[in-house]
Amino acid sequence: MFRAHGGNTMKLEKLVGDRFKERPTDCIIDSHALMIRGGYIKHVANGIFSSYTVLRRVTRKIENIIREEMDAIDGQEVLFPVVLPASLWQKSGRYENVGSELVRFRDRNESPMLLGMTHEEAAVHLVREYGQTYAKYPFMIYQIQTKFRDEPRPRGGLIRVREFTMKDAYSFHTSQDDLDEYFMRCYHAYKRIFSRVGLPQIIAVTSDSGMMGGSISHEFMLLTSIGEDSIVSCKSCDYRANMEAAENIIENEKNTTEKTLEKVHTPNMKTIEDVCDFLQLPIENSCKAVVYQKDSTDEYVVVFIRGDLDINETKLGNFLQEEIHPAIITDESGIVAGFIGPHQLVNISMLFDQSLMGLGNFCCGANEIDYHYTGFNVERDYGSVEYYDFAKAVEGGICPQCKNHSLIISRGVEVGHIFQLGTKYTETMDMNYTDENGNSHHPIMGCYGIGIGRLAASVCEKTHDEYGPIWPLSIAPWQIHLCCVRADDEQVKMFANNLYNQLQSENIEVIYDDRVVSAGVMFSDADLLGVPIRVIVSPRNMKESCCEIVTRDKSVNQKVKADVNEIIVALKNLIND
Amino acid sequence: MFRAHGGNTMKLEKLVGDRFKERPTDCIIDSHALMIRGGYIKHVANGIFSSYTVLRRVTRKIENIIREEMDAIDGQEVLFPVVLPASLWQKSGRYENVGSELVRFRDRNESPMLLGMTHEEAAVHLVREYGQTYAKYPFMIYQIQTKFRDEPRPRGGLIRVREFTMKDAYSFHTSQDDLDEYFMRCYHAYKRIFSRVGLPQIIAVTSDSGMMGGSISHEFMLLTSIGEDSIVSCKSCDYRANMEAAENIIENEKNTTEKTLEKVHTPNMKTIEDVCDFLQLPIENSCKAVVYQKDSTDEYVVVFIRGDLDINETKLGNFLQEEIHPAIITDESGIVAGFIGPHQLVNISMLFDQSLMGLGNFCCGANEIDYHYTGFNVERDYGSVEYYDFAKAVEGGICPQCKNHSLIISRGVEVGHIFQLGTKYTETMDMNYTDENGNSHHPIMGCYGIGIGRLAASVCEKTHDEYGPIWPLSIAPWQIHLCCVRADDEQVKMFANNLYNQLQSENIEVIYDDRVVSAGVMFSDADLLGVPIRVIVSPRNMKESCCEIVTRDKSVNQKVKADVNEIIVALKNLIND
Repeated sequence: MFRAHGGNTMKLEKLVGDRFKERPTDCIIDSHALMIRGGYIKHVANGIFSSYTVLRRVTRKIENIIREEMDAIDGQEVLFPVVLPASLWQKSGRYENVGSELVRFRDRNESPMLLGMTHEEAAVHLVREYGQTYAKYPFMIYQIQTKFRDEPRPRGGLIRVREFTMKDAYSFHTSQDDLDEYFMRCYHAYKRIFSRVGLPQIIAVTSDSGMMGGSISHEFMLLTSIGEDSIVSCKSCDYRANMEAAENIIENEKNTTEKTLEKVHTPNMKTIEDVCDFLQLPIENSCKAVVYQKDSTDEYVVVFIRGDLDINETKLGNFLQEEIHPAIITDESGIVAGFIGPHQLVNISMLFDQSLMGLGNFCCGANEIDYHYTGFNVERDYGSVEYYDFAKAVEGGICPQCKNHSLIISRGVEVGHIFQLGTKYTETMDMNYTDENGNSHHPIMGCYGIGIGRLAASVCEKTHDEYGPIWPLSIAPWQIHLCCVRADDEQVKMFANNLYNQLQSENIEVIYDDRVVSAGVMFSDADLLGVPIRVIVSPRNMKESCCEIVTRDKSVNQKVKADVNEIIVALKNLIND
Repeated sequence: MFRAHGGNTMKLEKLVGDRFKERPTDCIIDSHALMIRGGYIKHVANGIFSSYTVLRRVTRKIENIIREEMDAIDGQEVLFPVVLPASLWQKSGRYENVGSELVRFRDRNESPMLLGMTHEEAAVHLVREYGQTYAKYPFMIYQIQTKFRDEPRPRGGLIRVREFTMKDAYSFHTSQDDLDEYFMRCYHAYKRIFSRVGLPQIIAVTSDSGMMGGSISHEFMLLTSIGEDSIVSCKSCDYRANMEAAENIIENEKNTTEKTLEKVHTPNMKTIEDVCDFLQLPIENSCKAVVYQKDSTDEYVVVFIRGDLDINETKLGNFLQEEIHPAIITDESGIVAGFIGPHQLVNISMLFDQSLMGLGNFCCGANEIDYHYTGFNVERDYGSVEYYDFAKAVEGGICPQCKNHSLIISRGVEVGHIFQLGTKYTETMDMNYTDENGNSHHPIMGCYGIGIGRLAASVCEKTHDEYGPIWPLSIAPWQIHLCCVRADDEQVKMFANNLYNQLQSENIEVIYDDRVVSAGVMFSDADLLGVPIRVIVSPRNMKESCCEIVTRDKSVNQKVKADVNEIIVALKNLIND
């Protein structure tokens, strides 16, 4: 009954998709350019792509690796709908809370529906009855399915898209300890997945939970200059956090002599840099005002922070429990843009970053056009305030873990994310279980995501050269790329055909290029497909009674006797290495 | 690097999903009821389901069988987006032509988008540049992906849903001969797929192409009383067609003596049956009027047909090249409902079914309340008309192929559909190739679909008993169901554990039930999971130093020595049979 995998071998001339040399002008990052040039993807609409066979073979291998690792930690594969009734998300409150990245529409009966961008609600819905008694716990379900998220700014090919395939997993527990333990199992499964697809260098960083709810979350980051995220890590310990979640620690030295408050004329100097230049003060001795508005009410919030630092808007939003945006300052607001300071600013919410704590004698706006104060001391000239952490961490800053001045800032791409959700969804959606004593509780949830396409693009981003991707064997579209150079030479063609047949019967994945094209065209196509092991049969080789075996990463370049069996042994050795 | 499939074995007590005995009252068909009762699916919204692990294991096996067969006929797996820009469907004309089963919405930038319910446009978009020269042809691409079709009346569990997973394939050719040849390859691949999933009895029938365009199409039908389609087939030859596409052949005997036209009083007799009863005429001697309206203009169309026959609305719609609906007859229409006849009916479009051809002396409406004619002869009393085929085929009717009175009508579920599309999409979407002589042509397309969930439900519908599905080994969620009856008996438990471990290490798919529950509960759960081979370890068996091996279909019931190796050999024999 069982048939050989017809899909494991094919001739390159039959491969649907075009390959070309020119880098498309609209591609900013390499993986995007190479996936277009190599016939991996085709643009359909903003942030929406079709995948050709080459990429589909890569993503299927990634999916299968993920399945194996999810099954190994007792995950059970399920399938949730792409289209969900709005009622499910109304229960959790997300139908109203999530912005326009959630696609909402009405079906033919005018029922409100949505496109799932994540499936916490659907997961709770699926297991609500099953999980009614403690004996069923813990359990984890996962799916590999299409999701749609109407991103405002899709970019970078498969790095940030609107439609994507994702593995999303949901675990259910009866205690925080049990979740903690499972969370670590999943953490290690993720490490294994990333290693197996060829990205052992991916690191886990503490992150902000965003719209998911819950408290503890880790992002899995590939550090790369094309990343959209800023990662804060420590040179001297293992501290790692997404900038959004990174604590900023400040040690201000107390000023010894207190200066007096003085109003100074600062004509047309609207930035703190201009003012400090003019007054010949170091920028650390200034107090900058940054103004936001709450999305919900447009109420203004002024945040004061040391002049050399920037606001971390995620921390500010979390503190306010509100979505915020940079303010548009109107004439009626009573705010004197460019000259804002704590002194005599009234009827406006004010917050103070801890970078100002202990700092004296600084300059700040005087709430009057063209005037600033110098010698300002918060406690003396304004009054007692509470300080909070709203600042972005900085290169060379203090590590929250080891307390050394050893922070470094890098760019990263998020390829996975694991969350401890707590009871946010089980509470709102009325999922309960009965414990040993007959008492009712809400189960505690974890959730765990990996974007398949973005992971493929990340591998390509990390391991490629100017000629194409360099796929690891584990996820390469094929294991072997067989090049028959000069297929119009009968002896060459016959030998290559024999080898192809033998590889097929050994069930080795091979793409066979027997087109009558130049070696240049053949090799540049092979580079774009990025198959790890290449076998070259050519007239010159045949003359020497050998074949060449080279690897795409250039680590192997060997000649093997032109004997089909010997070549197969050599290839199997490379594959099994 | 390669890991054992952790997902191939599991304990039943860990399986997420509930099983229960009671048939849900809202389930009309057995497969729906069993899939709910067995923890296969959960209802999320009208025509939208989540799948539990048990079903996901079944559908993944079906998907892999389909992949193997598609690859074997040189198909290349790709992936199209679920969300498509409206512009693609505007090009083909379907954005306007398809009704409210197509979900349309606007994205955050107000661009019109849709949910793909089929992917002809996306397929042409993907290969338009690739297929610019004849040398690239033929080729076939396919995907396995979620689709959404806003069905007005979802029903029968997975038989008719709104969201579904489908394998859809698209082939491209430079000649009709080449398409014909590939069409047959695909036809045979479909036959193999259905055989392999356990439905060799599926038949192919000629069908109507509907909204797909093109002319030749075949549906693959499982004949079953729960089917929504009517299938016309012949007892004496291999003619098979969907009722929608079935030709109706009539042989009327010419009346020997012509009667005169006579108007008769038929008070309150508004159906042709009442009139024939009253006049004591056989119903075949009557002419029935059936009134439709065109969807586009509401224009009336009256179809005259022999009283014993019914209108095939698909054939009528195809003839008119318009969508139609049964008429709502208003007072202003000039139509005298219940008394309509050809004679003196004016200002209304009239059509004549060929069942009236050659028929004389029949009764028909007189277009006057409470009056009919008898002795009506179309040519004599109305004039010369063209006759067309608008009638539904009937049981015992004449076979269009062998001309015997041998037609039978059955019910069927459509599990697959293959179409010859011609150049409908390549023309509208400007896909061209250059032939050997430098001339430009539109390629000819075929398309080929299989609904995965519906196929799983069809297998369940065809092979089940009152206790549960009886899955064929090829798509069963597991190969072996190991029952440890009285898991609280140490000797029994130890033996069953050993067997489970050995099955795991042999990489045999096994679900292991070692719960301390009654044999009754254990076996009814096993029946619901429908695993083909069951191994029973129990105290009674242990006493006799044996185990029982029984198959779900009851064809095997044997005792094997309680020796792990012997049992494994016996099981492998059953698996490989």
